[in-house]
Amino acid sequence: MAGSAAPELKHCDRPLCSVSARGLIDSVDAFLFDCDGVIWKGDELIQGVPQSLQLLRDMGKKLIFVTNNSTKSRKQYAKKFLELGVDVTESEIFSSSFAAAMFLKLNKYPCDRKVYVIGEEGILEELEEAGFSCLGGPEDGKKNIVLKSNFRFDHDNNVGAVVVGLDQYINYYKLQYATLCIRENPGCLFIATNRDAVGHLTDLQEWPGAGCMVAAICGSTQKEPIVVGKPSTFMMDFLIERFQISTSRMCMVGDRLDTDILFGQNAGCKTLLVLSGVTSLSALHDPANNIHPDYYTSTISDILELSKL
Amino acid sequence: MAGSAAPELKHCDRPLCSVSARGLIDSVDAFLFDCDGVIWKGDELIQGVPQSLQLLRDMGKKLIFVTNNSTKSRKQYAKKFLELGVDVTESEIFSSSFAAAMFLKLNKYPCDRKVYVIGEEGILEELEEAGFSCLGGPEDGKKNIVLKSNFRFDHDNNVGAVVVGLDQYINYYKLQYATLCIRENPGCLFIATNRDAVGHLTDLQEWPGAGCMVAAICGSTQKEPIVVGKPSTFMMDFLIERFQISTSRMCMVGDRLDTDILFGQNAGCKTLLVLSGVTSLSALHDPANNIHPDYYTSTISDILELSKL
Repeated sequence: MAGSAAPELKHCDRPLCSVSARGLIDSVDAFLFDCDGVIWKGDELIQGVPQSLQLLRDMGKKLIFVTNNSTKSRKQYAKKFLELGVDVTESEIFSSSFAAAMFLKLNKYPCDRKVYVIGEEGILEELEEAGFSCLGGPEDGKKNIVLKSNFRFDHDNNVGAVVVGLDQYINYYKLQYATLCIRENPGCLFIATNRDAVGHLTDLQEWPGAGCMVAAICGSTQKEPIVVGKPSTFMMDFLIERFQISTSRMCMVGDRLDTDILFGQNAGCKTLLVLSGVTSLSALHDPANNIHPDYYTSTISDILELSKL
Repeated sequence: MAGSAAPELKHCDRPLCSVSARGLIDSVDAFLFDCDGVIWKGDELIQGVPQSLQLLRDMGKKLIFVTNNSTKSRKQYAKKFLELGVDVTESEIFSSSFAAAMFLKLNKYPCDRKVYVIGEEGILEELEEAGFSCLGGPEDGKKNIVLKSNFRFDHDNNVGAVVVGLDQYINYYKLQYATLCIRENPGCLFIATNRDAVGHLTDLQEWPGAGCMVAAICGSTQKEPIVVGKPSTFMMDFLIERFQISTSRMCMVGDRLDTDILFGQNAGCKTLLVLSGVTSLSALHDPANNIHPDYYTSTISDILELSKL
């Protein structure tokens, strides 16, 4: 990279300062927060989060939580917020599990057809809440296959959509089931909750994300999915419709460049990268990186800390 | 596809006939056969195979078996041939499991570093036969993870290569292990035995192939692998060196366009597609297909049947 001054000059990533923090707060009506790496890491709350969220609420800001993590439903996320002592209601939460269900609903997916799920409880709960019948999920994590002569692996011909999300119980049974549905059921939809490569599923380290399971199914079917989570615009279109706030009056706060920041930028929101999750300062400044937020800072509590200086 | 006569005119796939069969036999010294879908389907031999191979041997042709299926070692394949009543020796077999071991050996991979394997016995056997120490494989198929606070998943920092092949015991433990090695061990190699989307692992149907597991690791690491099996030229370069036969005097016989036929064509071999495996006549003639063998026919027994007419 010798002599590579040019890429750094092309875009100056700006650390949030007291002036820009006040400007940001004044210029938006809603803050959209990613959760993993922004609000918490695994089951550990990131320092200063409850106070910061409360202060933003006190200032009249609308708070919306937009997570690609599909392992929980909105109901389960509301419970998690409560357990962590953060006051957030189900109606403020938009998970990719919910987005998958809304995608099928808005596209009038017939309720008499089934949905096969590679993923966890969150997807099943949201699909069932929306009136769809599901197969797969954790249940199929217990199933084994013995590859032998004259054995035929049967799948339900009435599956018209496969939803793939993060699944820590992924196995060959599920991979074959999903592959058969997509390859053999005419018109079967292939929906990905998101394509995050890795995520902070525990506080201490990152783990393969939905991008791993989605890629596996791309590999066996040679098809590309419809992505409903960030950075796809599906969830944002849904949010705009629901809250009737102009995207120019929103700020997307996240820890991932390729999902959160891109999601915000695609929609015309202001964007703030926090370094409390998967993105390091060196990754942000890497000349190979071409996604640049309006501002970056350490954690969300800086927004208010800085604005008071 | 209305009015799409042009793509069909661009390339006329030719069915093997008596004249071309005789011409083919006369013009080559060696036949390279894929196995799954050509010699057998699962554990069922395809009709007429033993007789056809014997007759080609009687005519002085060299026979070489080149399979992307990494679940077995050459030794295990020789045993399978024997059990099916086909006279093939270990030295005639080139599996992608062997190719992975040879790739490391030819690239002077240090024997004091370990290799992590997503795959089955075949890869472990070949790596160990070549003098390498392995981790993973079937053993790790039994391991579970509980994602909880303060839990750190440790991996061996001395792993310098990850080999990924077909693995019916794929699980989240292996996905995380391989991902950590590739992302965190400096210079760690990511080697794929092959990228076949599906394969005839049983006689009655296709199953997700190594392409599924390889894609999963691409998804979580955002890296691309070194592919050692078909259609990569690594195996062919090795064969040419070993047998000292000009590729223009070889015919590659296979059931897959994107691996077998492409592999043969990349090397300058003659190519024969058999329709006894994953490729249908309509897939061959699909205007979207741009891989065309010199000839196609139903099964390998046609080579001799037709030549006698």
